[in-house]
Amino acid sequence: MLVISGFAGTGKGTLVSALLEKYDNYALSVSATTRSPRQGEKDGVHYFFKTREEFQEMIRSEELIEYAQYVDNYYGTPRDYVEQKLAEGKDVILEIEMQGALKIKEKFPDTLLLFVVPPDADTLQKRLKGRGTETPEIIKKRLHRAIEETEYIFKYDYLVVNDQIDECVQKTHAIIQSEHFRVQRNEDFVKVLQEDMKKFK
Amino acid sequence: MLVISGFAGTGKGTLVSALLEKYDNYALSVSATTRSPRQGEKDGVHYFFKTREEFQEMIRSEELIEYAQYVDNYYGTPRDYVEQKLAEGKDVILEIEMQGALKIKEKFPDTLLLFVVPPDADTLQKRLKGRGTETPEIIKKRLHRAIEETEYIFKYDYLVVNDQIDECVQKTHAIIQSEHFRVQRNEDFVKVLQEDMKKFK
Repeated sequence: MLVISGFAGTGKGTLVSALLEKYDNYALSVSATTRSPRQGEKDGVHYFFKTREEFQEMIRSEELIEYAQYVDNYYGTPRDYVEQKLAEGKDVILEIEMQGALKIKEKFPDTLLLFVVPPDADTLQKRLKGRGTETPEIIKKRLHRAIEETEYIFKYDYLVVNDQIDECVQKTHAIIQSEHFRVQRNEDFVKVLQEDMKKFK
Repeated sequence: MLVISGFAGTGKGTLVSALLEKYDNYALSVSATTRSPRQGEKDGVHYFFKTREEFQEMIRSEELIEYAQYVDNYYGTPRDYVEQKLAEGKDVILEIEMQGALKIKEKFPDTLLLFVVPPDADTLQKRLKGRGTETPEIIKKRLHRAIEETEYIFKYDYLVVNDQIDECVQKTHAIIQSEHFRVQRNEDFVKVLQEDMKKFK
């Protein structure tokens, strides 16, 4: 399980779409949210769009592995889908914001946390404005939120600078796949080898 | 700085040569040793071959960043060359055995430790015999040593299974390059970005 977070406007969405399209070992966890759909966003594909009441019911019945409030809306990760995809051997990507990411890491310490950043602050502002889907007031809110988030970047495992998107996709894939070879993620293999070697004693 | 270790006969040497040949960001630290040259090995290229007296003099004058004894011989890492290559921005590879590797990690905690293993015990024995450069007695010594080493694999960061060499080379390169994106290795970048973002306050 891995989490991709990043300031609004860093191109997390594009990165995640490209990973899913280019490689077949990934599955994307679809989040539930109370925010309104942006143009082109589909229920059950980009998000499960919920009313506040529906969302609060999901919290109560423990259908979410984490949830958080972010700029006046709820966001959460439905449990069922994640568990199913992990069982299929997929690397399950959670594209969630920082509060949720840190809660996930606490509950599931094996989770890999990646944080996507722009090459610099001006690029971030330009991308947010260029998106053209938010009011100036919301853009300001998102930039303020980004400033707060910089304080917690050190809680993440990897930092991915999104300058050129293709390069960023390749880099991110390499990071995720390399993590599979961490010694701690291969305890079983090491133990089998240890037993196997004993025949030379 | 990174260390590649592994049981004798796992193909560490081939792996390291391929990394140096295929990519231009690596430099190999040449070790000093008291063991005799194998056929084709050149002084100053594969090792600096030293007498016991010369080696002990290097220890006394602190010309080695680490040294260890392994199957009756001394092995050590001369300091000068490593520091020079790091200053050039290279990823400096130390192909050293486990004792030395763990000492290096203690002294320089940022060092990345990779351990190369065979897919299974039989493959290891077959490769050691196939090399045809050691007596059966030495092969037995090396296998016993390998059994001891399995206990310390968990002190390493990454495990690389050398089954197909080409795949192993690519995987190892991806692991090493991905490590450059660890958040802890990018403190300076994060601090610059944090300062840069403050202008949106």
